[in-house]
Amino acid sequence: MKPGLLNSPGERDLIAHIRARVPAAPAWLTVGIGDDAAVVQPERGALEILTTDALVEDVHFDRRFSSPADIGWKALAVNLSDIAAMGGTPRLALLSLALPVTVEAHEIDSLLDGFLALAGEQDARVTLAGGNITRSPGPLMVDVTVTGFARPRHVLTRGGARPGDDIYVTGAIGAASAGLSWLRAARARGSEATDEGAMAACAARHRRPEPRVRVGALLGRNRAATACMDLSDGLADGVRQIAEASGTGARIDAAALPIPAAALDFFVRDGVDPIRSAVSGGDDYELLFTVPRRFRGRLATVVRQSRGVPITRIGEITREPGGFLLRDGMREPLPDGFVHF
Amino acid sequence: MKPGLLNSPGERDLIAHIRARVPAAPAWLTVGIGDDAAVVQPERGALEILTTDALVEDVHFDRRFSSPADIGWKALAVNLSDIAAMGGTPRLALLSLALPVTVEAHEIDSLLDGFLALAGEQDARVTLAGGNITRSPGPLMVDVTVTGFARPRHVLTRGGARPGDDIYVTGAIGAASAGLSWLRAARARGSEATDEGAMAACAARHRRPEPRVRVGALLGRNRAATACMDLSDGLADGVRQIAEASGTGARIDAAALPIPAAALDFFVRDGVDPIRSAVSGGDDYELLFTVPRRFRGRLATVVRQSRGVPITRIGEITREPGGFLLRDGMREPLPDGFVHF
Repeated sequence: MKPGLLNSPGERDLIAHIRARVPAAPAWLTVGIGDDAAVVQPERGALEILTTDALVEDVHFDRRFSSPADIGWKALAVNLSDIAAMGGTPRLALLSLALPVTVEAHEIDSLLDGFLALAGEQDARVTLAGGNITRSPGPLMVDVTVTGFARPRHVLTRGGARPGDDIYVTGAIGAASAGLSWLRAARARGSEATDEGAMAACAARHRRPEPRVRVGALLGRNRAATACMDLSDGLADGVRQIAEASGTGARIDAAALPIPAAALDFFVRDGVDPIRSAVSGGDDYELLFTVPRRFRGRLATVVRQSRGVPITRIGEITREPGGFLLRDGMREPLPDGFVHF
Repeated sequence: MKPGLLNSPGERDLIAHIRARVPAAPAWLTVGIGDDAAVVQPERGALEILTTDALVEDVHFDRRFSSPADIGWKALAVNLSDIAAMGGTPRLALLSLALPVTVEAHEIDSLLDGFLALAGEQDARVTLAGGNITRSPGPLMVDVTVTGFARPRHVLTRGGARPGDDIYVTGAIGAASAGLSWLRAARARGSEATDEGAMAACAARHRRPEPRVRVGALLGRNRAATACMDLSDGLADGVRQIAEASGTGARIDAAALPIPAAALDFFVRDGVDPIRSAVSGGDDYELLFTVPRRFRGRLATVVRQSRGVPITRIGEITREPGGFLLRDGMREPLPDGFVHF
């Protein structure tokens, strides 16, 4: 962690405060928060997985809809989701904050609450090993780097899908984007969104996505998937990415899509096509992966150990390139990817 | 690298473009740019060093003074400097960009030019393995993560200095802050700073610091230093950090400080105390380190292999806590650290 970029005493106090809040360091962490850099012992016999992803105010979150704790949680979640998508197990995180002067000390503390709450979850366990704090003359930005590991033959990429593979997705899609639209609609009416009910649950998916850390690691360890990625920009975008990287096409069966009833209802009332909205909505942070028929036994093992995370077959990889949606027996092109805000 | 946060086609094109510009991947890079995360084989028998540091527009740079290529260079340089400060050898970088819509495609390309120019330097050689691109509703932000490695007994921290150790610094101090003040003064007068002369050379130190990658790795490999850190927030700040982390104090000899004559002259003409300005000015990115007398032979080895980087003895670690400056036989407290902008 670098000193002094915010302002020397303030930033140093903040780093000392963060350091005091981080749980006891694991044995592999040789140097943690407080020096020029973190030093770690690599995981023996494993490949290292590295990802970085930033949340920017008014691009990825709105401080009227997300609490500081939600933002801290989500900044880690989107990175854990990337590690899961590679079949990896997360290990450490670096937290880089750019803080507007309007952000108060207790809000930084709340942001850290959210970050550390997810970092301490049983499946996501990740050690905050360092980072950086600077001030921002504009938006709040939270940039997180996460490393993880996987045995060499357990790494999942986007490029391994083959024609005939089944396409699966974890959890549910469309909920986060329906939830965000609902929050915005309430704001536009000048009313406050309630904390209860099915739409509040959708809004919670936008605020605090649950990265599928356990499922990702299980898919890798059981070598059950030929391709995998996480859904940050919508299912349609993900399907297209896997198909392109694998040199294939894909068919998605509209009737099979795990779209929560509340989100479907919301889209219908909103006057938009519910299926197209759900598959193009962002922020799902579910895993999209492909499984050949001969690996169905391996997938069953993954499902058994997934602690109730739904895993749904939604289509099939095709030889013919391009992605399409099969709805009521009719083919239609997949919509474009999600553009945040 | 995550898709779609800027806008799907634009960001994807940009990632493809970056990917095409990155030199051939080394054998240890299993998965590079273009998947959910990078995958690498760890360096055998070494500890891993990780750091992240962000440059924020109007906090760390001014686009009127620094070209996009300067910004790209510096964003990597400040991270390489952290790896050097730990005695490490850099290995890979992740580049996270938050781009205002006012930044044009050719400017992003120039930023990448600067980044890759430094990444390709013989001593700094580092592989761009992934990253993230998003838009920014405010300032341009460049957040870089760099990993490096060092043998376990070669890692340098801030906390190992002992009373009686000599204090050394690489290169020169005060040049970058004098150069930045000079650029600002020219701007305030409504004139353009020239590209020639000693003050332009100082401005170049602000724009494109040379991280002391080779010296840092040599200090680690030769086990020549008891403590080391890099100077981002001024020498005075660095001395205080090492003294605090080591539970000691420090005496700095004003007459020994390697301050370029042009910077001294500039500070005098500016009506400020030249010594205090030089030791409190930020952006030096030199290495500050401590060497016990018995390691002088090891230090001589480092100096011989440092390819002409000046290494100057500037003071001594003291038992008595606190840092002070010895000037003309008089003691004065060290000034406070540098606050960027």
